[in-house]
Amino acid sequence: MNKNRLEAFSDGVLAIIITIMVLEIKIPHSSNIQDLLQIFPTFISYLISFIYVGIYWNNHHHLIHTLHKVTGPVMWANLHLLFWLSLIPFASGWIGENHYKPYPTMLYGVMLLMAAVAYFILQGIIIKVEGKSSKLKQAVGNDWKGKVSVVCYFFAVCTSLKWPWIAQIIYVIVAIMWLLPDRRIEKFMQSQ
Amino acid sequence: MNKNRLEAFSDGVLAIIITIMVLEIKIPHSSNIQDLLQIFPTFISYLISFIYVGIYWNNHHHLIHTLHKVTGPVMWANLHLLFWLSLIPFASGWIGENHYKPYPTMLYGVMLLMAAVAYFILQGIIIKVEGKSSKLKQAVGNDWKGKVSVVCYFFAVCTSLKWPWIAQIIYVIVAIMWLLPDRRIEKFMQSQ
Amino acid sequence: MNKNRLEAFSDGVLAIIITIMVLEIKIPHSSNIQDLLQIFPTFISYLISFIYVGIYWNNHHHLIHTLHKVTGPVMWANLHLLFWLSLIPFASGWIGENHYKPYPTMLYGVMLLMAAVAYFILQGIIIKVEGKSSKLKQAVGNDWKGKVSVVCYFFAVCTSLKWPWIAQIIYVIVAIMWLLPDRRIEKFMQSQ
Amino acid sequence: MNKNRLEAFSDGVLAIIITIMVLEIKIPHSSNIQDLLQIFPTFISYLISFIYVGIYWNNHHHLIHTLHKVTGPVMWANLHLLFWLSLIPFASGWIGENHYKPYPTMLYGVMLLMAAVAYFILQGIIIKVEGKSSKLKQAVGNDWKGKVSVVCYFFAVCTSLKWPWIAQIIYVIVAIMWLLPDRRIEKFMQSQ
Repeated sequence: MNKNRLEAFSDGVLAIIITIMVLEIKIPHSSNIQDLLQIFPTFISYLISFIYVGIYWNNHHHLIHTLHKVTGPVMWANLHLLFWLSLIPFASGWIGENHYKPYPTMLYGVMLLMAAVAYFILQGIIIKVEGKSSKLKQAVGNDWKGKVSVVCYFFAVCTSLKWPWIAQIIYVIVAIMWLLPDRRIEKFMQSQ
Repeated sequence: MNKNRLEAFSDGVLAIIITIMVLEIKIPHSSNIQDLLQIFPTFISYLISFIYVGIYWNNHHHLIHTLHKVTGPVMWANLHLLFWLSLIPFASGWIGENHYKPYPTMLYGVMLLMAAVAYFILQGIIIKVEGKSSKLKQAVGNDWKGKVSVVCYFFAVCTSLKWPWIAQIIYVIVAIMWLLPDRRIEKFMQSQ
Repeated sequence: MNKNRLEAFSDGVLAIIITIMVLEIKIPHSSNIQDLLQIFPTFISYLISFIYVGIYWNNHHHLIHTLHKVTGPVMWANLHLLFWLSLIPFASGWIGENHYKPYPTMLYGVMLLMAAVAYFILQGIIIKVEGKSSKLKQAVGNDWKGKVSVVCYFFAVCTSLKWPWIAQIIYVIVAIMWLLPDRRIEKFMQSQ
Repeated sequence: MNKNRLEAFSDGVLAIIITIMVLEIKIPHSSNIQDLLQIFPTFISYLISFIYVGIYWNNHHHLIHTLHKVTGPVMWANLHLLFWLSLIPFASGWIGENHYKPYPTMLYGVMLLMAAVAYFILQGIIIKVEGKSSKLKQAVGNDWKGKVSVVCYFFAVCTSLKWPWIAQIIYVIVAIMWLLPDRRIEKFMQSQ
């Protein structure tokens, strides 16, 4: 399996996810200002989800960049990550229509948590395939960002049923943390 | 017709199929736990269908990999395969909303059966185009997996109206069988 | 503007059109055999539309294949063609839900007619850009197939309000006519 | 980050936007001529939006064409532009179903305005990255077209609540202005 094809397929899926999410913002039937205000929460959850897909697109690139050999496990670990990301339009649409509600907030967190775990698995498999001296291994280092995210998502899921707004603030904070580009890998790559 | 373009188009269609399926998981209007549990069967059928598209993407790659010349029949046999695969979101959505029901189970099986037959036809045409000494011919061998799948799907379709749960177990078992990568082609390719 | 990018964008749009059409086959809420039979006309119109997009994808490839320079007019003539083709999911969905009805049949014909005219315009502009000695010019020849299609579509649109079934038979016949690959261009290319 | 990947991802998103818009043209349930006429405004807004996406696709190409190095800010400025463009199907669908109404007209204008601003930001960042001697800087010149558009959109948004039809005429005029290809960049590139 060619690396470029894996990259192109993943990019295709991410491009579709980021774009079809908009179909979950239902067009109001009337045209007054109340309708516009009513879809505002949906718009916010759309924005957050858009940023999350953007983050994954960016990080996915860094991950695959160092890969040389696409094995079966790499391909399926990649599809596993895409599976959880493909649920974003659904989770985003549900939380958008039921802002501040416990269960949609929990589901959104579970999806983010599973995607983060899937990312971890993919990262681990790529490092294994590339060997101990893999560039990715050295570039990732102790990967505090990835670990912090998983802990945050887990904590958010736990609090979501009691205090959904805390969970939602966590989702925003983690997104902002990741928005700052992953300098570790970038710096390492430039120093090559 | 360039082989890369055929591959890119097929990958594009498969990426779209795998991603728009999520639009068939209808967002519940309220936000309680019952709603979440009610979409669980839809989620399961989404998962199975996701795996099936992943399997076809992977196998399709192996199939096209050995191809040198894209003729008219190859192009149309490929579109024929994509046609049946493009029905997955519909069949998956219907079985998801009507779990354990006979007709949706039958339709899902018919779609899988037709896709498997279309895959067989495409494989046969590629081997014909490439000639007796085609790498694919040697790599595929007696192709027990493909033949077993077709028999399984056919059997599942037959039982689906009487015992839909048997048919559904068959769909899961065949998916698991294919999840294991097609070592025949891979091994042969590596020995080149 | 790079030719590959025009080709990739067009392929992307065609891949999306051919795949989202399935979203117009509405999933029935119950699961009995009547529901399955009721969507049969939609399935047929889906099949015909799938074949038409496949034909345009194939012919579009031949058209762009001979192109060297992507000018503004070529780009916009190409987008013009994609515009009419992008209406296929809508026209196909409407005729599918209202089989044998005059207006949906007329609309489907108008869309096919406009797409054929847009194809003609694109072909004309490419020949102009490439100059009198253009390979496409020589390969297309007198282009009886294109001209016959336009006449057929026009005739179908005219009869659609009175005898929609005649129009629908014409759509099927023209599709079959085009299914046979455009040997003129292919032969010419191979003789180079 | 490779420039080709940024271009491919952007092209993918634009191809999806331009194609899924058609899903916002709801298929009428009956099949009479009134239904066809009723969707005419939706068709017009679909056409205008299609042209706008086409314009952005074309201009985006010119913008990225001169780029050498994809930095973090370039990537996020690009995603920012795609974000506003991704709202086109929603804004287009709403104005299509509520033609001549103030709020949908305003929203459409806000989206166009934000996309134009995002385009400006992306252009500025690319020029900064490429340095003072950047080809784009020289090619863009004083960029009267971009500035005029922003002023027009702003004016349209302001008038939309009082005289929506004026705003709508402005949207059409600006589209026509951009339809004429950006000869500045093209000419400059050819003179290299």
